[in-house]
Amino acid sequence: MRIARFSIDGNVAFGAVEEGPDGLVLDIIKGIPYADFELSGVKVPLAKVRLLPPVIGNKIVAFGRNYAEHAKELGNEVPDAPFAFFKPTTSMVGDGDPIEYPGFSNELHHEAELAVVIGRMCREVPRERVKDVIFGYTCANDVTARDVQKREKQWARAKGFDSSCPIGPWVETELDPSDLAIQCTVNGEQRQLGSTSQMIHSIEDLIVNITEAMTLLPGDVILTGTPAGVGPLNVGDEVAVTIQGIGTLTNKVIKRG
Amino acid sequence: MRIARFSIDGNVAFGAVEEGPDGLVLDIIKGIPYADFELSGVKVPLAKVRLLPPVIGNKIVAFGRNYAEHAKELGNEVPDAPFAFFKPTTSMVGDGDPIEYPGFSNELHHEAELAVVIGRMCREVPRERVKDVIFGYTCANDVTARDVQKREKQWARAKGFDSSCPIGPWVETELDPSDLAIQCTVNGEQRQLGSTSQMIHSIEDLIVNITEAMTLLPGDVILTGTPAGVGPLNVGDEVAVTIQGIGTLTNKVIKRG
Repeated sequence: MRIARFSIDGNVAFGAVEEGPDGLVLDIIKGIPYADFELSGVKVPLAKVRLLPPVIGNKIVAFGRNYAEHAKELGNEVPDAPFAFFKPTTSMVGDGDPIEYPGFSNELHHEAELAVVIGRMCREVPRERVKDVIFGYTCANDVTARDVQKREKQWARAKGFDSSCPIGPWVETELDPSDLAIQCTVNGEQRQLGSTSQMIHSIEDLIVNITEAMTLLPGDVILTGTPAGVGPLNVGDEVAVTIQGIGTLTNKVIKRG
Repeated sequence: MRIARFSIDGNVAFGAVEEGPDGLVLDIIKGIPYADFELSGVKVPLAKVRLLPPVIGNKIVAFGRNYAEHAKELGNEVPDAPFAFFKPTTSMVGDGDPIEYPGFSNELHHEAELAVVIGRMCREVPRERVKDVIFGYTCANDVTARDVQKREKQWARAKGFDSSCPIGPWVETELDPSDLAIQCTVNGEQRQLGSTSQMIHSIEDLIVNITEAMTLLPGDVILTGTPAGVGPLNVGDEVAVTIQGIGTLTNKVIKRG
């Protein structure tokens, strides 16, 4: 099932994406999708809604240098163990929302990533139970102010500014994430192409690693690292992240007003 | 005014701390304190409640190396510009709650800090408007897994594990934060003693710096750095952070169950 979050006429809801006679529709969900939920049967055309980030969570945990070729392209060593940083939930925007180029950076980069959405409150998850705490998968762009990242020892500003986490268009709940093509284009030109099979540390590794330390809550997001090919984004660019079996997340870069 | 958050008989509320005839009482607040609120006049004894983290916010932004003597004691350079990292809200515990020593570290350290609580949604705050976005001040302990911090390039696990952010006991809304004694004791013995006047980057600097990048929401917390004297915490220790004009935040270290 594909689950989107959206607004229409000032109302916000989750909905299941379905084929309708005249295109995709959203079957409105009663309740929230991380717990028991049911479909209402009330449907609205996807074309009429504004898509929102398809999760409401407490935190975004992102892992660095999880694809060897990407670590190398930035001149970094490939780390032995995973390491994590946070992006705040205020950094999330949905499919179609603008990425606002902030005034404190002159070098924004795209980083296409597979996002894992957590479905259950959990801590110290054993490897064999990881699949039980995963709700689904979506596309994300870990937009990075590369110049600020180089200057500042910790990356709160470089990777946490408003609109630095486009995510969506929806969460796919039925998917084997082990070998999915992940692509990033800018203005239609391919910049990144990799496969989730190239991750150094698997999704199981990452979730074991982070839950060793902290509780994850339903709707929390794990960003799993970006493949090689990161590069600049400029005002006016349209950046698209496509992951096999999920869909495409498209955002345009505008100057922050 | 001092504003606490607490639970009693399964109910959770904010309350104003007042002197009663038989000790401190909490005057229950109608609504949430960041917006317009009023006191209900219904009072409960402070001694009967469990204090909770006195904020409900979206994020905790913490600044590193903001006291020169502390940067030096860890062998670090004093940075020219502030740098920030996040602690997740799942790391917060209140006054009297235990700090749970996690299994993935063998070296927990205390770090006493002045916490600034944000009262208004804000971004790109000019220096002269910073005071308008501050709701008040409280005590915090930026508990750190020092061994993990040394190993991992980004500090999500080292400073983000559950119970790594004791905060409280309440938020003081009327206070000049420019020269307050800040002390940390372990089992009654003084470990840290400094003054907020020793901050390298002022509260104004820090809030200008972070809001250049991102939106802060009511209840968000800014940790302003720790003075020299950080050191180990062991299971069984009682650690207390006292800040002049605010009060004392006390937590006992237990083994995570």
